Amino acid sequence: MSTAGQVIRCKAAVAWESGKPLSIEEVEVAPPQKNEVRIKILFTSLCHTDVYFWDAKGQNPLFPRILGHEAGGIVESVGEGVTDLEPGDHVLPIFTGECKECAHCLSEESNMCDLLRINTDRGEMIHDGKSRFSINGKPIYHFLGTSTFSEYTVVHVGQVAKINPEAPLDKVCVLSCGMSTGSGLVPLNVAKPKKGQSVAIFGLGAVGLAAAEGARVSGASRIIGVDLNPSRFEQAKKFGVTEFVNPKDHDKPVQEVIVEMTGGGVDRSVECTGSIQAMISAFECVHDGWGVAVLVGVPNKDDAFKTHPVNLLNERTLKGTFFGNYKPRTDIPAVVEKYMNKELELDKFITHSVPFSEINKAFELMLAGEGLRCMIRMDA
Amino acid sequence: MSTAGQVIRCKAAVAWESGKPLSIEEVEVAPPQKNEVRIKILFTSLCHTDVYFWDAKGQNPLFPRILGHEAGGIVESVGEGVTDLEPGDHVLPIFTGECKECAHCLSEESNMCDLLRINTDRGEMIHDGKSRFSINGKPIYHFLGTSTFSEYTVVHVGQVAKINPEAPLDKVCVLSCGMSTGSGLVPLNVAKPKKGQSVAIFGLGAVGLAAAEGARVSGASRIIGVDLNPSRFEQAKKFGVTEFVNPKDHDKPVQEVIVEMTGGGVDRSVECTGSIQAMISAFECVHDGWGVAVLVGVPNKDDAFKTHPVNLLNERTLKGTFFGNYKPRTDIPAVVEKYMNKELELDKFITHSVPFSEINKAFELMLAGEGLRCMIRMDA
Repeated sequence: MSTAGQVIRCKAAVAWESGKPLSIEEVEVAPPQKNEVRIKILFTSLCHTDVYFWDAKGQNPLFPRILGHEAGGIVESVGEGVTDLEPGDHVLPIFTGECKECAHCLSEESNMCDLLRINTDRGEMIHDGKSRFSINGKPIYHFLGTSTFSEYTVVHVGQVAKINPEAPLDKVCVLSCGMSTGSGLVPLNVAKPKKGQSVAIFGLGAVGLAAAEGARVSGASRIIGVDLNPSRFEQAKKFGVTEFVNPKDHDKPVQEVIVEMTGGGVDRSVECTGSIQAMISAFECVHDGWGVAVLVGVPNKDDAFKTHPVNLLNERTLKGTFFGNYKPRTDIPAVVEKYMNKELELDKFITHSVPFSEINKAFELMLAGEGLRCMIRMDA
Repeated sequence: MSTAGQVIRCKAAVAWESGKPLSIEEVEVAPPQKNEVRIKILFTSLCHTDVYFWDAKGQNPLFPRILGHEAGGIVESVGEGVTDLEPGDHVLPIFTGECKECAHCLSEESNMCDLLRINTDRGEMIHDGKSRFSINGKPIYHFLGTSTFSEYTVVHVGQVAKINPEAPLDKVCVLSCGMSTGSGLVPLNVAKPKKGQSVAIFGLGAVGLAAAEGARVSGASRIIGVDLNPSRFEQAKKFGVTEFVNPKDHDKPVQEVIVEMTGGGVDRSVECTGSIQAMISAFECVHDGWGVAVLVGVPNKDDAFKTHPVNLLNERTLKGTFFGNYKPRTDIPAVVEKYMNKELELDKFITHSVPFSEINKAFELMLAGEGLRCMIRMDA
């Protein structure tokens, strides 16, 4: 029997207040409205951003809320005006969208859609300013327009990438956030290293390792990993990192260490921590004449990036990126194909797996700094 | 009678001490040594950099010195090891070189030659650490390896661009510095605006106007000139500048004014003043998603470039350039051809002309902010 047009009752993990374990509840999921899609989530994984907004330190708290944004699922039904998706399509919901109509979507260079750009403060759908989730009539807030910690969720069509139905959703689901943010920027879009070049990667968490994977795919000859936590070095070897620098082991700034190691600086660097000091080091460690530094990590709101302008005038380039510069609907299906063609490895990022009922264990693992991605199985 | 291998006695304008008028003297110019070329200078023009090192404020003064670096001339003789130039060749001496052997010269992306990169402190030739200029046996220092305020000068072969002998040296001589620095970076090398894009140019002196000319050639739809001196606006119209903003006319930062004028920011910006505040404004006035800001102006040594990193993460790019990213020997001959083919206009930059005997008048014009380039005729 079709559930289209009906309210669906299903299980969701609700964050009732900041920092408290999620609670699995039965929620009501309203049918998709204009330009919306209802998706049955099969797999979702936990990303630092979920933990950051669950912890909600220094933010306007928005609770109760259904978190989650890295996921894979199948379209259950579509709302009015949705023409390019239909029930049964395999999809990845994405935390930032592509309306295909604004100046950014029409630009070849940008993925920062005016309509659907990431908005962490919004808790409702754009169409009517209301939530599609409720418990006994009380609305539950959305998160990033995705809210994938639910068996069913409603997402704007501009935030849904339709992918190859043969792709294993329990693997490619990590492409809906972290692995695209990291891997996109190195081989394909932004830093564009050439074969044989050297790359420094600041921060060896999941995004940094995705950048390492991207650098490996692009043929980088040296991949220098920088992290304050030496326990990450062993794991990073599996992701192609060839050398390690722990800033704590040196008396001088890490950029000077890297410049010495490389006879003038690396060809490319990627900053994946969000620390302002790491951003400055990542810029100042690239070679003059041609070096490119790419910033990925999200800074604190009071941070200031500061450098001597001569570092720029000596023909260094500094650029930032967002979601690996991928346009979610246009580009992500092709990244899934790269996984299918074995050009890109994803399995090694998935270090843990739990049933939905144990979702809080995924939070515990991340808070303990264990592993990279914990896959949450909705049907288990 | 050939002068090759002989000391040549000729006239040169010697700066005996900082800030004092140059004095036309008879000097001795030694023959070129290994990898050196002796050039008969026919035309030279005055650039701010000459005035800056003549004024010598806050520098290690290096006097007596023969200044000058924008010039055109003819090879008189060549030293040992010089195979790609011969007497009679028409050339532009360039203040920064290209050895064709170091990592920078071998890189497609860099023009910052390890051996011959601009060095403002050096007063002698690299080969033997000695000067080729003297008066009664007392050495006179070189400047930038070019010292073109002399009827004859000696230059390292790596700093000599061989050009089309039909090119008028009294026009293309401005390509040996300012007009290449400005024009190179916009249409060809660094900022790469696309047809129809908007460009903001900070500073409407000769380099800024060269950038405007470059933007015009590349088909920019709007060229917004920014300067504190409104008297420059009328002249700038001839160089394709379509709109003007004087930061003094506004209560808010000029970047905000430009973002409003353009509905989100310009596509490209070029900073040609060297003011750190203008650099920050030039960066912050480009559109998120795709904007590129290029820094050209040389900052003070204590300046710090400072911005919120989110300005970068929103997919803006910041890069510096040096001599328009041109490789002096490889690229400048082709820029001369662009002038010969009427793709690039240079004549309008040359607003004044004086005989060599009146070289101090060129300094007076520049100090008074009058005109763009004053051509100095060596034979007059």
